[in-house]
Amino acid sequence: MRVYLAGPEVFLPDALEIAAAKKRICAAHGLEGVFPFDTPPQAPPAERPYWMRIYLGNEAHIRSCGGLIANLTPFRGPSADAGTVFELGFMRALGRPVMGYSNAAAAFLDRSRDFLGAEARPREDGGWEDAEAMGLEDFGLADNLMIDGGIAAAGGAFERTEAAAGRRWHDLQAFERCCARLAALVGKAG
Amino acid sequence: MRVYLAGPEVFLPDALEIAAAKKRICAAHGLEGVFPFDTPPQAPPAERPYWMRIYLGNEAHIRSCGGLIANLTPFRGPSADAGTVFELGFMRALGRPVMGYSNAAAAFLDRSRDFLGAEARPREDGGWEDAEAMGLEDFGLADNLMIDGGIAAAGGAFERTEAAAGRRWHDLQAFERCCARLAALVGKAG
Repeated sequence: MRVYLAGPEVFLPDALEIAAAKKRICAAHGLEGVFPFDTPPQAPPAERPYWMRIYLGNEAHIRSCGGLIANLTPFRGPSADAGTVFELGFMRALGRPVMGYSNAAAAFLDRSRDFLGAEARPREDGGWEDAEAMGLEDFGLADNLMIDGGIAAAGGAFERTEAAAGRRWHDLQAFERCCARLAALVGKAG
Repeated sequence: MRVYLAGPEVFLPDALEIAAAKKRICAAHGLEGVFPFDTPPQAPPAERPYWMRIYLGNEAHIRSCGGLIANLTPFRGPSADAGTVFELGFMRALGRPVMGYSNAAAAFLDRSRDFLGAEARPREDGGWEDAEAMGLEDFGLADNLMIDGGIAAAGGAFERTEAAAGRRWHDLQAFERCCARLAALVGKAG
């Protein structure tokens, strides 16, 4: 089965090396990894702007895949990369299995409090809010409940690990656990 | 047409007042606004955890709507709220019209650079990267290209305005422009 490999690794200088490593792990679990940089199944119209061709290529990739594994490691803030989250929601709506992983083990509430620092303040009901009085989610989840919920609704798993310093974008242990779980889920369904 | 009102206003103490104001604006454009706190069309199973019932309720809301308007104002980082972005991707995959707005007018690159501060550094090719050598998107867009692209692919618009200080979560001018554009889009299709 083709599996879309969503994640912010596309922004790294060694994105292609990470893609190759992920594809090898996929293959070991009987899956075919599809990276955003791969040639899309349908070529986007040449007259569209460059960024829109990337968008349309990614959308075509996702539609061509039977499942998705998202790298949901926090990216420039307490939550996952926005592009990855968009793709996760997209695949969930297609009704196909999605898995997620994060190389930061802390719960979303703790990461949100860390991010806000002194701006996080306790509410009278025991919860937390930011300087604009906006509440902090406190469900013991890995990220915003729409992310954890979408994965759970699709029968997937959200694997968390604490990567060693400097290995945040290269540790593939939690990714491999996602591959194993996805292969088991698909095998059970097939 | 029912329109799902996605956005991080759900975290505000006056979320219900904002919901009511948005619904009034929708009605003035012939649309029926649906807020996440509304009773979902299907009640989620009572035995699921509270956060999963919220997820399933929101998913049912989205499936019951003919379009979606997302508040993509940056939320705890340079990008939009993760839950809102998930919902945007979800609705795009359903093939229905989506609109987005932001009450911060600056381009995504500028916001990313502001967020990173001294950690943002120029690349030799004229681009920018962060302290982990991850590139900064530089397409002149409002957010990650999957967000701008999904809206464009659905025939929608991404409306940006710079809200006055303290009005970031309450200024509904860009939201109203989305309502007008969605009503026109649906009217043209109908």
